[in-house]
Amino acid sequence: MNNDQIRFDFNNVMLKKTGKRHLVSRDEIAALEPAVRDFHAQLQAEKAAGKLGFADLPDRTDAADACRKAAEARKGGFENFVVLGIGGSALGPIAVHNAIHNPHYNLDERLRNGWPRFFVEDNIDPDRMHALISLLDVRKTLFNVISKSGGTAETMAQFLIFRQMLRDQLGDAFAKNMIVTTDASNGLMREIVAAEGYESFAIPGNVGGRFSELTPVGLFPAAMTGINVANLLAGAKAMAQRCSVAELWKNPAYMDAVLHFIADTQKGKHISVMMPYSSRLRDIADWYRQLWAESLGKKHDLDGKVVNVGQTPVKALGVTDQHSQVQLYVEGPNDKVFTFIAVGKYSCDVTIPKAFDSKEGASYLGGHTLGELFDAERVGTQVAITQAGRPNLTITIPEVNEHHLGGLLYLFELQTAMAGKLYRINAFDQPGVEAGKRAAYALMGRAGYEKDRRQIESLTKKADDEFVIC
Amino acid sequence: MNNDQIRFDFNNVMLKKTGKRHLVSRDEIAALEPAVRDFHAQLQAEKAAGKLGFADLPDRTDAADACRKAAEARKGGFENFVVLGIGGSALGPIAVHNAIHNPHYNLDERLRNGWPRFFVEDNIDPDRMHALISLLDVRKTLFNVISKSGGTAETMAQFLIFRQMLRDQLGDAFAKNMIVTTDASNGLMREIVAAEGYESFAIPGNVGGRFSELTPVGLFPAAMTGINVANLLAGAKAMAQRCSVAELWKNPAYMDAVLHFIADTQKGKHISVMMPYSSRLRDIADWYRQLWAESLGKKHDLDGKVVNVGQTPVKALGVTDQHSQVQLYVEGPNDKVFTFIAVGKYSCDVTIPKAFDSKEGASYLGGHTLGELFDAERVGTQVAITQAGRPNLTITIPEVNEHHLGGLLYLFELQTAMAGKLYRINAFDQPGVEAGKRAAYALMGRAGYEKDRRQIESLTKKADDEFVIC
Repeated sequence: MNNDQIRFDFNNVMLKKTGKRHLVSRDEIAALEPAVRDFHAQLQAEKAAGKLGFADLPDRTDAADACRKAAEARKGGFENFVVLGIGGSALGPIAVHNAIHNPHYNLDERLRNGWPRFFVEDNIDPDRMHALISLLDVRKTLFNVISKSGGTAETMAQFLIFRQMLRDQLGDAFAKNMIVTTDASNGLMREIVAAEGYESFAIPGNVGGRFSELTPVGLFPAAMTGINVANLLAGAKAMAQRCSVAELWKNPAYMDAVLHFIADTQKGKHISVMMPYSSRLRDIADWYRQLWAESLGKKHDLDGKVVNVGQTPVKALGVTDQHSQVQLYVEGPNDKVFTFIAVGKYSCDVTIPKAFDSKEGASYLGGHTLGELFDAERVGTQVAITQAGRPNLTITIPEVNEHHLGGLLYLFELQTAMAGKLYRINAFDQPGVEAGKRAAYALMGRAGYEKDRRQIESLTKKADDEFVIC
Repeated sequence: MNNDQIRFDFNNVMLKKTGKRHLVSRDEIAALEPAVRDFHAQLQAEKAAGKLGFADLPDRTDAADACRKAAEARKGGFENFVVLGIGGSALGPIAVHNAIHNPHYNLDERLRNGWPRFFVEDNIDPDRMHALISLLDVRKTLFNVISKSGGTAETMAQFLIFRQMLRDQLGDAFAKNMIVTTDASNGLMREIVAAEGYESFAIPGNVGGRFSELTPVGLFPAAMTGINVANLLAGAKAMAQRCSVAELWKNPAYMDAVLHFIADTQKGKHISVMMPYSSRLRDIADWYRQLWAESLGKKHDLDGKVVNVGQTPVKALGVTDQHSQVQLYVEGPNDKVFTFIAVGKYSCDVTIPKAFDSKEGASYLGGHTLGELFDAERVGTQVAITQAGRPNLTITIPEVNEHHLGGLLYLFELQTAMAGKLYRINAFDQPGVEAGKRAAYALMGRAGYEKDRRQIESLTKKADDEFVIC
């Protein structure tokens, strides 16, 4: 066993001597092995042909260097750093920030070591936006507009608002408070960069939003708070090497894909719960939620047949959600597969003092550490869920640092790519988002969407008062 | 139509002229009307017999007064206010705080109006706990230990840690920095209150943790940041009155329960997504997640028959999760029913400046407000989800304030109680949490759990290395 690398334990998914029909047999896995070997060869060929962009990223140390240098040049120059982005432009930066930094980073300047406060504005709620505007001195704020397509309505609206504020307050010098991360050559934001002279980073054309955390989308925001982005990439690279083998039984990304695929399509586990036992990794589960849902939730397969597939990802947090969701997980429908994420070594621990010797409900805790209690609760939950016949996996990350975080991100990205092959869908598009976008454009009066608007108005007019209680 | 109260619109659940089998017909609702009338009578009888504790809370203005006075007496006396609690002792306080206060409340003292910073420590992650300990000057911190049972391991561990720190730093006066909210007469925390002389609040014996937000569990933390707790109760009371009628077609709580029940048990919608279009209401969806999951996720029905029921609640946030989950919602399996929460009037709005006249991808936004864009995106998503044949409801809250928040909480509580009747399960217990708790006690070496420990050790020993990749 190697304690220095991420450990993938799938004992509690496997049918061993228990005979429980909800668990997976060796034969069920073996039946997919030939397909996995084929898909592995396909993925390798796609990578070689430059069509699997995310797989190239661990080697792009030039991007990490550029982000680090750009960040260092700005250190001390700004009080605040604000990401304007949503979806794939926000979830990764949030997840990495919260994994590496103290939860009170913004509250206590001793934790920042000279780096700016960190905000990700991933919504356009007017109340929330107004609160941010009131808080910030924009002259002392660096904005990082992140949009792969360059046309995301929410990000464009935010950009227009802060651009105007910067122009009003800084005049001609306003562009220095804005850095744009967008497609290398296409899209509206790329045009605006050229017209207004912003510094910019490029997202490779073959990397989609939800696979972009290891591009400057994630690397620059991380670097702007002092996170070691070279180590993020090095960890991803180590994981890429581990997962470069065709053999399913040695490849955690492929095995995780296969187990989830069997669970969903053969065992009725239509829900995939990710439950880190680490507050620091909470938002990794949120990032994974987009990756898994948007990549695999598809109407059509590769032949154009209607399939409506896709497991629903759910995030939970240990131990917090033991007191919210575990009742359902243990006693409700057996329709879930669980991924626990455990941490081998915490960066700090706290000893629980001995007290109330005569009160058994308190005294058993004294002398233990919080880490021991945390681990005991995780194991207790795993045991309860296993005894209830519900399949569960455990991924153990030796400690929460940049290296292992990069490894974890890459593991899930490759797993998702393999899952796309198993489901026989395109894991890299998102056609289902178009209808809602068109409708929003239409309602905002964008030229070219007049017909959509009439259609929506006729649809929304059909609302009957008999189906309203007010 | 009454624009001053919460509006419940279920047009997009109803089969009208579309003939879609995923939607609900009037006949399917009508078939449940006699049962709902019976269940209404049962709930009324239970209330009269003092067995439906949460339904009495809107009238407990004495509790609100006591919390307000206790808070006012402490205003200015503390820099920090920390809730030590988990599950039902944390989700409500977090949800109300984030709904009423500015998201930067802790960061900017101008937003606090003399009230202390607000923290809810709802986990025992050692890294997170260490971070909080490092941040706080405990001498200037008021801790509110909240535990209905008084024996929750996580809360007890936190209490022991901060109690010791307070004793070390404040000596005999340490008790003034601690307030305990627990059962009126039972449990270990109640004994400790008596022994150590803490001030305390009582949770009525007939109100369980997840239904306790309108007791001092929620009222005191709210009052400690200046939230008008009387208005919370008044709003709940107004909703209780609206929902006191037996007629399903006039009672939003009952109709919401019936529609979710039909969706789950007759239409295969085993997932209930709550998607507020309001950052302020995000954590209401988290609070609801516990309420729905823990109340309805049950192995046995009232006759003791094994049923394994329970819809899985999922929280999403508009517009943020349009860029993360909506691809799956529109194109994936049709296994979800959606509840959108809309806000009638934002407390602030921001106008998007006109710019880039010649660039259509930016110019259509100029002159609109963010609120208009936010609403257009919500309607766009609703239209896309409806056109894809997926049932969805919209609850519109006139504005986010204490009154309507109280109403919303009560609406969901009563809906859950009615849903419990429809599923024929006990909505007020949580037997499935016991196994995990016992396991954790055993692993911590608590007396009386030696047998459990041996059992767990034999179970966890069974792990085969062949099912581990590391």
